[in-house]
Amino acid sequence: MIKVILLGAGNVATHLVNAFQSSENVQLTQMYNRDKEKLTPFKGRVKTTTHMKNLEVADFYILALKDDIIEEVASKMPKVDGIVAHTSGGKSIEALSRFKAYGVFYPLQSFSKNRWVNFKEIPLCLEANSKENLEKLKFLGKEISGSINEVSSEDRKVLHAAAVFANNFTNHLYQIAEDICKQNGLSFELLKPLIKETAAKISDLSPRDAQTGPALRDDRQTIATHLETLPEEYRDLYKFLTASIQKSHGKEL
Amino acid sequence: MIKVILLGAGNVATHLVNAFQSSENVQLTQMYNRDKEKLTPFKGRVKTTTHMKNLEVADFYILALKDDIIEEVASKMPKVDGIVAHTSGGKSIEALSRFKAYGVFYPLQSFSKNRWVNFKEIPLCLEANSKENLEKLKFLGKEISGSINEVSSEDRKVLHAAAVFANNFTNHLYQIAEDICKQNGLSFELLKPLIKETAAKISDLSPRDAQTGPALRDDRQTIATHLETLPEEYRDLYKFLTASIQKSHGKEL
Repeated sequence: MIKVILLGAGNVATHLVNAFQSSENVQLTQMYNRDKEKLTPFKGRVKTTTHMKNLEVADFYILALKDDIIEEVASKMPKVDGIVAHTSGGKSIEALSRFKAYGVFYPLQSFSKNRWVNFKEIPLCLEANSKENLEKLKFLGKEISGSINEVSSEDRKVLHAAAVFANNFTNHLYQIAEDICKQNGLSFELLKPLIKETAAKISDLSPRDAQTGPALRDDRQTIATHLETLPEEYRDLYKFLTASIQKSHGKEL
Repeated sequence: MIKVILLGAGNVATHLVNAFQSSENVQLTQMYNRDKEKLTPFKGRVKTTTHMKNLEVADFYILALKDDIIEEVASKMPKVDGIVAHTSGGKSIEALSRFKAYGVFYPLQSFSKNRWVNFKEIPLCLEANSKENLEKLKFLGKEISGSINEVSSEDRKVLHAAAVFANNFTNHLYQIAEDICKQNGLSFELLKPLIKETAAKISDLSPRDAQTGPALRDDRQTIATHLETLPEEYRDLYKFLTASIQKSHGKEL
């Protein structure tokens, strides 16, 4: 049995509990969080503790914590023999360098508390302070995901920045589309099939080849009509993104 | 039997052929296109013609044409008795005002030639020059879609502008994410599950509530790291979208 202790009780931790408990070869030994209340949802499923001194012995200590408290929590941990790894996209592996064996166990996905995701499909980006420890992290990773990737801290930073475009910024555009609908008394439901298909399309087609629309065609009449139609607060962004599409597709304007 | 003639042979026309031919109550009487070659893929499935004078009699004439040729093609049509409707998101219903009975039959989706979509789920936005003709268009629409919506030309313009955010601009962000990966030798495959989940999430959650990330948290350290990490050409857009998220969520910065 691979013994795992989870530190944290947020969205990533919650999804990891489900993933680890679905694996026959993993024993989720314990969960730690300093706030007792946050551990309540896990009672009965995992042993929990709010005290570092009660931390048991395990093969892996996974810190599923917000970026800004990883070092603080790590500094309070005993100097364990198992591998200590955080799940952050943005933090360097060196945040955990006080341990003998350390690494990164970053699931590249956006987790929400009440949405189930198939963990098997989530790319795990792994890094460790030695080849041996990397192999161990891969061994654990394979128990829960079908996509195991060795990614350096430098590359992970890049991925994390790219993920902001693919997730945060994309979601913001959805929100703008919703706002535009609402401000005009139109149902956002009308746009949902389009949003789903836009995302689904990239399985078959590179986004560069999938690009369509007035910006790409340099259809100035439609662009002008849209700018008139849009709420004022979104006009500059429309112009900026239109210019970005045209630049990126080598339109000479 | 409802008799339909399609004018056009592009992506929208192709998907409409499939949709109409799946309905037991619709007879796709004929397809028109001025370019014979473009009709080749439909040979054997539908009667085709390249001459307006050969246009048969039908209940509906659906103009699945690019915006800039709708009026031109319409001007060459005989003054038919059936309802003439275009499928454009951006064109006013008045583009077809030379006919007795006219309207709009706009499927709100992004169509690609080689991707099947379930037409039943595509919102149809309908408009007509009379109540009676609107009812007729609804009657036809229900044969192929489960989402029938009466949308005025004004509202359709708004929806079309919102769709640019939900589709064109979103796809552009995917392309940027792909570029960032490629420029650093990373596989874009790593981001695909994230992209799919970001889109899937809005079924349950308003995009406003689904927003996460360094911009929303005003996590200046992560933002600074991303800006350093990004290819220079995408830094301004990163800043612009970060500011837009913060403005839109009422951060006082």
